[in-house]
Amino acid sequence: MMRYKAIISYDGSQFSGFQRQTKARTVQEEFEKTLSRLNNGKIITIQGAGRTDAGVHAYGQVIHFDLEQERDIEKLRFALDTQTPDDIDVISIEAVDETFHARYNKHLKTYEFLVDIGRPKNPMMRNYATHYPYPLEIPLIEEAIKDLIGTHDFTGFTAAGTTIENKVRTLYKAKVSYDEDRQFLVFTFTGNGFLYKQVRNMVGTLLKIGNQRMPVEQIRIILEAKDRQLAGPTAAGNGLYLKEIIYED
Amino acid sequence: MMRYKAIISYDGSQFSGFQRQTKARTVQEEFEKTLSRLNNGKIITIQGAGRTDAGVHAYGQVIHFDLEQERDIEKLRFALDTQTPDDIDVISIEAVDETFHARYNKHLKTYEFLVDIGRPKNPMMRNYATHYPYPLEIPLIEEAIKDLIGTHDFTGFTAAGTTIENKVRTLYKAKVSYDEDRQFLVFTFTGNGFLYKQVRNMVGTLLKIGNQRMPVEQIRIILEAKDRQLAGPTAAGNGLYLKEIIYED
Repeated sequence: MMRYKAIISYDGSQFSGFQRQTKARTVQEEFEKTLSRLNNGKIITIQGAGRTDAGVHAYGQVIHFDLEQERDIEKLRFALDTQTPDDIDVISIEAVDETFHARYNKHLKTYEFLVDIGRPKNPMMRNYATHYPYPLEIPLIEEAIKDLIGTHDFTGFTAAGTTIENKVRTLYKAKVSYDEDRQFLVFTFTGNGFLYKQVRNMVGTLLKIGNQRMPVEQIRIILEAKDRQLAGPTAAGNGLYLKEIIYED
Repeated sequence: MMRYKAIISYDGSQFSGFQRQTKARTVQEEFEKTLSRLNNGKIITIQGAGRTDAGVHAYGQVIHFDLEQERDIEKLRFALDTQTPDDIDVISIEAVDETFHARYNKHLKTYEFLVDIGRPKNPMMRNYATHYPYPLEIPLIEEAIKDLIGTHDFTGFTAAGTTIENKVRTLYKAKVSYDEDRQFLVFTFTGNGFLYKQVRNMVGTLLKIGNQRMPVEQIRIILEAKDRQLAGPTAAGNGLYLKEIIYED
């Protein structure tokens, strides 16, 4: 048996998320169908590092899967890249130790979130950025976002009713920049793990702060109170990108 | 009667082009439906400066139309922007002299053509750039593209069987640049008019030159021979953008 690690990218707009579910098109299902076809029809299951939601995109999702025989890496990559649907790409494949697990091996994930603040929006980007047509004070967002950096209990930024017990995560980077050419706000977050809807809730809250409907201290208040009710709305999935995953050695 | 000029942008991927046709979704039809709804159901016809093909996008298409009553410009823009489908945006509207005609008034048009030369392609851009997975010598394209600048008979770069008699046009700018971040070639063309499929045929030919399957002199040869057979294939519409239209005063 050989274990393979692959970096894949996909356009999330036509998927109901990464993870397999009945009666909905998912990245996992499409990828497994292709893998099975390349493996004499035998069912192969993949494991993904991040379970992206409906509409969420990936430039650097990492998956792993096992094949019975050793394969030529580049031939396997090319076959998977060209035989998966057009909205999935296979960037690279490597053979890894059989103890490697895309999800459970320690890693840093980087997410990016694009907000189109142009008026009107860019129609070409309507599935690839979240349009925000209201006034924004970017310096307020720049100030507030710093409070997210560090080790915190992020309960206030996850969906209510999440079953995971430990909600402490470390955010190493939390940054916003303005792309003047495209009239986009670009949020970047790097951390050792993210709770369900955490990035989208952080962005939704930061936009509300920038729009001056929440005070700039609100991030600190939410982190301390651990209360989802105090945070802003969940930003739409179409602006979110799983950008990169880096594993500890 | 008041004549209005509007600048609109649209994502061409879900349209069968700009111009109205039976049994296919077009920009003109969708726009006219909305205009009619805002005008007590009376039918209003729009005139567009450029008849973009299926899959072709626009950041700066110009149209004009007549309304019986004078309207508040910003209210009209907002109503049209929000009530047209999500893949059409209305950037600006102004009242113009009734002699203004979006198509027949003299103007310069700028088209951009995006070629994704990344391997693999960017899946998010599959409807917004044409993927070219073969080796390219960009300096050869840079050299050849200069031969397009100036006043020429572009018969060799238009679809065979075009009925327009005068095929002489002036190209003021023809440029290619490499966007390293996105791994895109960006072609830009500015001219006083373009023949049917001219930009896509010029790009298809330039890519073949860059791929060294045509000599760098081929542009000159095609312009002199006025023979479509000597040119490269028509590049796909998904990479083409009608970028800007500037009218003579």
